[in-house]
Amino acid sequence: MNELATGCIMKHMIVSVAVAGASGYAGGEILRLLLGHPKFASGELRIGALTAGSNAGSLLGAHHPHLLPLAERELEETTTDVLSGHDVVFLGLPHGSSGPVADALPPATLVIDCGADFRLQESAEWEKYYGGTHAGTWPYGLPELPGNREVLSGAARIAVPGCYPTVSTLALLPAVAAGIVSPAITIVAVSGASGAGRSPKVDLLAAEVIGSARAYGVGGMHRHTPEIIQNLSAVANSPVNVSFTPVLAPMARGILATCTAPTTVTTAEARAVYEKAYADEPFVTLLPEGRLPATGSVIGSNAIQLSVAVDERSGTLIAVGAMDNLTKGTGGGAVQSMNLALGWGETEGLSTVGVAP
Amino acid sequence: MNELATGCIMKHMIVSVAVAGASGYAGGEILRLLLGHPKFASGELRIGALTAGSNAGSLLGAHHPHLLPLAERELEETTTDVLSGHDVVFLGLPHGSSGPVADALPPATLVIDCGADFRLQESAEWEKYYGGTHAGTWPYGLPELPGNREVLSGAARIAVPGCYPTVSTLALLPAVAAGIVSPAITIVAVSGASGAGRSPKVDLLAAEVIGSARAYGVGGMHRHTPEIIQNLSAVANSPVNVSFTPVLAPMARGILATCTAPTTVTTAEARAVYEKAYADEPFVTLLPEGRLPATGSVIGSNAIQLSVAVDERSGTLIAVGAMDNLTKGTGGGAVQSMNLALGWGETEGLSTVGVAP
Amino acid sequence: MNELATGCIMKHMIVSVAVAGASGYAGGEILRLLLGHPKFASGELRIGALTAGSNAGSLLGAHHPHLLPLAERELEETTTDVLSGHDVVFLGLPHGSSGPVADALPPATLVIDCGADFRLQESAEWEKYYGGTHAGTWPYGLPELPGNREVLSGAARIAVPGCYPTVSTLALLPAVAAGIVSPAITIVAVSGASGAGRSPKVDLLAAEVIGSARAYGVGGMHRHTPEIIQNLSAVANSPVNVSFTPVLAPMARGILATCTAPTTVTTAEARAVYEKAYADEPFVTLLPEGRLPATGSVIGSNAIQLSVAVDERSGTLIAVGAMDNLTKGTGGGAVQSMNLALGWGETEGLSTVGVAP
Amino acid sequence: MNELATGCIMKHMIVSVAVAGASGYAGGEILRLLLGHPKFASGELRIGALTAGSNAGSLLGAHHPHLLPLAERELEETTTDVLSGHDVVFLGLPHGSSGPVADALPPATLVIDCGADFRLQESAEWEKYYGGTHAGTWPYGLPELPGNREVLSGAARIAVPGCYPTVSTLALLPAVAAGIVSPAITIVAVSGASGAGRSPKVDLLAAEVIGSARAYGVGGMHRHTPEIIQNLSAVANSPVNVSFTPVLAPMARGILATCTAPTTVTTAEARAVYEKAYADEPFVTLLPEGRLPATGSVIGSNAIQLSVAVDERSGTLIAVGAMDNLTKGTGGGAVQSMNLALGWGETEGLSTVGVAP
Repeated sequence: MNELATGCIMKHMIVSVAVAGASGYAGGEILRLLLGHPKFASGELRIGALTAGSNAGSLLGAHHPHLLPLAERELEETTTDVLSGHDVVFLGLPHGSSGPVADALPPATLVIDCGADFRLQESAEWEKYYGGTHAGTWPYGLPELPGNREVLSGAARIAVPGCYPTVSTLALLPAVAAGIVSPAITIVAVSGASGAGRSPKVDLLAAEVIGSARAYGVGGMHRHTPEIIQNLSAVANSPVNVSFTPVLAPMARGILATCTAPTTVTTAEARAVYEKAYADEPFVTLLPEGRLPATGSVIGSNAIQLSVAVDERSGTLIAVGAMDNLTKGTGGGAVQSMNLALGWGETEGLSTVGVAP
Repeated sequence: MNELATGCIMKHMIVSVAVAGASGYAGGEILRLLLGHPKFASGELRIGALTAGSNAGSLLGAHHPHLLPLAERELEETTTDVLSGHDVVFLGLPHGSSGPVADALPPATLVIDCGADFRLQESAEWEKYYGGTHAGTWPYGLPELPGNREVLSGAARIAVPGCYPTVSTLALLPAVAAGIVSPAITIVAVSGASGAGRSPKVDLLAAEVIGSARAYGVGGMHRHTPEIIQNLSAVANSPVNVSFTPVLAPMARGILATCTAPTTVTTAEARAVYEKAYADEPFVTLLPEGRLPATGSVIGSNAIQLSVAVDERSGTLIAVGAMDNLTKGTGGGAVQSMNLALGWGETEGLSTVGVAP
Repeated sequence: MNELATGCIMKHMIVSVAVAGASGYAGGEILRLLLGHPKFASGELRIGALTAGSNAGSLLGAHHPHLLPLAERELEETTTDVLSGHDVVFLGLPHGSSGPVADALPPATLVIDCGADFRLQESAEWEKYYGGTHAGTWPYGLPELPGNREVLSGAARIAVPGCYPTVSTLALLPAVAAGIVSPAITIVAVSGASGAGRSPKVDLLAAEVIGSARAYGVGGMHRHTPEIIQNLSAVANSPVNVSFTPVLAPMARGILATCTAPTTVTTAEARAVYEKAYADEPFVTLLPEGRLPATGSVIGSNAIQLSVAVDERSGTLIAVGAMDNLTKGTGGGAVQSMNLALGWGETEGLSTVGVAP
Repeated sequence: MNELATGCIMKHMIVSVAVAGASGYAGGEILRLLLGHPKFASGELRIGALTAGSNAGSLLGAHHPHLLPLAERELEETTTDVLSGHDVVFLGLPHGSSGPVADALPPATLVIDCGADFRLQESAEWEKYYGGTHAGTWPYGLPELPGNREVLSGAARIAVPGCYPTVSTLALLPAVAAGIVSPAITIVAVSGASGAGRSPKVDLLAAEVIGSARAYGVGGMHRHTPEIIQNLSAVANSPVNVSFTPVLAPMARGILATCTAPTTVTTAEARAVYEKAYADEPFVTLLPEGRLPATGSVIGSNAIQLSVAVDERSGTLIAVGAMDNLTKGTGGGAVQSMNLALGWGETEGLSTVGVAP
């Protein structure tokens, strides 16, 4: 293997990667994963420009002291000039900002957007939930969706899914695809505070969040709602009904999504459906019967751990998924898509091993 | 003022209160509330025997250093001899232990059980979820249930509801009673670690719980499930279907219950139903539209803060309730019932003001 | 009893209290304590104007949902007109803002400043650590300092001590006063995030603070340093040398101060000194030998729990103090001083019972 | 490099590694690091027997769900038979248990003990702090100590340092070695709960630890005290005086050690000493002036981040170090020593990049 790898280096160009929004949480997570990517170790991937908005001019170490090898890197302005000339550009920008930046980049540049701008297919949905003009729809960076790996291989524009949609979709996909649940879905997902981003707000202060759980976006108001509906409706090949409620819990990372829907199958039958669906997925694991997912098991990893059970008394299928919102839910999902788009091994630089406890 | 107050004391009996299981969380919370009870301040309530199991012989201060005024109190064995002779006995014992203790106490003694032994009406349900022989059914200490204040006034035996059932029932009661939801209910409730009690277990260690959210009792396995069904079916006057999933979050106290059910009403209609139902309840508050409950707002208080909204797209009513599992969910609910049973003011010693942030 | 109590009210004046900066943490804590104050229950204390800066015009419930009884109160502008006409005005304003507000209030108004403006005696110290012009020096609201209760009784202007100085001073006071330590003191104090106030800053976001401990103000830079030196030098009646390092830990409330100094006495001798010093103090408790303070034991209470021990090998006295920074460290200390100034019972409305776990 | 690596594989034996105590935190962390070690990826390192005490017979996945690739591995009994035949044996056993296990293994086996049994040189110290008979003294696995890399290269027995001694020693080493501080050292170190191990105890329950900071081992009682003294006295080449107080904070991982000592130098002089001392150390970083260490920056990494400043007013040098107690403080330190002992690259499988936020 090593001998072949050596050959690869000879044949390959060095891929230059820029990260726009490098001082935010998405940007920081992408950089963390790139620093551990085997292609970075081998020299085939080079970390180029790091850009920021108001933080431009400062050193990355002031914002991400955990990224020691890049501590002395200066953040540049997020401009076309700075980003052009890279083979890959990751965008970790506020919603609505990615469109203009992407438009100005060459069509051959692989642009991977961690924002919401290009996730939705329906412009009416975008305008209802985000406001303003819909920028468009890009290939959707969830390789686990049926047929999606082919779409992503060689794509030049990729929209990274939202964190809640990633885990919710994958927790329900086998059940919806197999038609073992009615399309009346209820999702309650508990998330850590990093999911809300790094802009300072009173209600995200540590003193407010520690020791408290609170719901938000109740009543289908959360912007990830139409994305979840879009995904599950595509899988079902017909509209599904989704009630989605997010809950903020006192932790930095992680989402635990509890997804329920009416069913008539047994736990054993449901498990069989899930086992078959995910037998070959590198990052989605159905836990053995009797074990339940915990976000603490997937921190820093690209893994989603799932359980599925049927409450026969109420006739409900309950699928629970645990995921790191910043890794598989953002930066890891982005790197996974990059790997596919560049023709690299899909799992390179991504691990199923979490940091615990 | 002291002289005048003394006059009051002369007119009243002194009520002697014992707490069995005083070194546990339920016992500690009851003692915290009794220390702040106006009848304790006035001398009308006396804190008598404090008993424990394996902790008998040690000082309360070793277990509850936050209860400074009782720090030097020695824990006694939980025996009939020790508990007899008190007017009120609170039981904070492991499930299945309260029956024998209660049977040996005089019928006139007010016995308030914080365990599950006497909550359920159906023996088959008890045996299915708890195992062993069902001890019986006592008046159910949830004054907010229709007609229940009358039952509790003057009762000599009271079963304190479980924490999840308290907040879940009260979050859904108006909707179920008014018939504005279909009886297909999904509850996902996030709880702090104190709900699991004080027995040391690996999966409750701080290092395991901090930084992690995890589901447990998935598939209707949690013992509070039949209690929730019992309450809501009584309110609906017909069987309701309930899927209940508890989630452990990294906090010490608090439950946030997200309760959903199909509906055809609007948010305004739902709010009107809730406003009417809780207009006179001292401890249940419907928040103004646009505000959402947080457990951090009710810590140490007997309050339940609620929101209700309708997701019209999915036709779902979402009621969210925040409660302190140890106060309104255990010790506060127990004191509220004691107040009613003794003919004291229902809210004495109980506050709607939480400790925040 | 109500009739008799009514008689008491007739004899007393009603004291009107305003809180400036009511939407902040200090203001919220003062209001929490006033709501539980017996003089509020009896009608002798009335909560008057609540003012704010940028939050003026909004309802208190939007900022302090835990203060349900005041949820509908509208926040007014912090002006002389609004604050005048109250008997007591609490100031919970940014450092440097209290001077002008206080100057404009009548001399007979009891003004209690939770900020730093009037704590220091040396103008040079103020200017070095806070910048700008020193507003002056007021009676220092730490009743436990020798002779200070007399000063505070009847005072019309009171400077509430800083949170770190309160617990550090009281942890060391007996040792320094008795001369059993050399004046070469090292203090490392761990604090929760509420101590940093409620202004949104990136480094106080929940995602930054949770899961992390970090030092700040290292090298004697923290503004509480001169205040600690001032207190301990007064007690010692000669200059003491203090190294003070604060540490931010992932909790909302609480300070644990570890205070060390060279000594030649034994643990037993040190304990005897502390026992004698605090025998009659209502809010300072020396724990029994073998028990160590935890901030979790004092949350929401006005108590300081202390331990003292001597490491004979290194010849070091180690005094550890636990305190709630918002209660005894801010709002509780303020109410304690108000009680003294008004001639009320010093402990009224203040408890040594914490909310735990 | 790749070509040479290929050659290495050909020439090298496959190194077989066993982990005793694999279900504990130390064992889990070692396994996490081994799964990410390049020699594991290349096939040169094989993870052999995983053993446990009372958990023998169960699957690793039941204890470490974050180690997905090993989830199906069955834990064996910790016996000589099981451990023999491996090239490397890591011991993550209770203090006092490693001696007999190590004695029974062949002298050529590389045994790396994460317990305390072989850390101390003085038997009297061992007996005073740990009780029982001192098992002996092994090469001390802190490569950053002067001359220690040579000792560890090729060693067959290595004692991994305690977590507190690792960060405390390295925070003070340059100052003590250069003689710029007086040997009167005060250390207050804040640690997360994983440092206390995985045995269930009431005072380590999440409900007890969350929301609370508490001191323990006050008065020089903590077992790491003599180890810190041993290290710093060796560096100083004369006895140093150390007061050490550990504090438990509500986080899972991480130690922040605040280390102070009298000095007459300036901050600039102190920084120059530290910069020189650690210029070539791969895992110890002096942060730029003005930045302070946070444990949140080193989670999961083998890095120690340091600051040093002088409080000229009090004449105190304050060195603060942040470290992950389970990585550099246990499992990472162990792997670093293994790398040295086997002649591998010292930093292989170890990163300075943490998982944040």
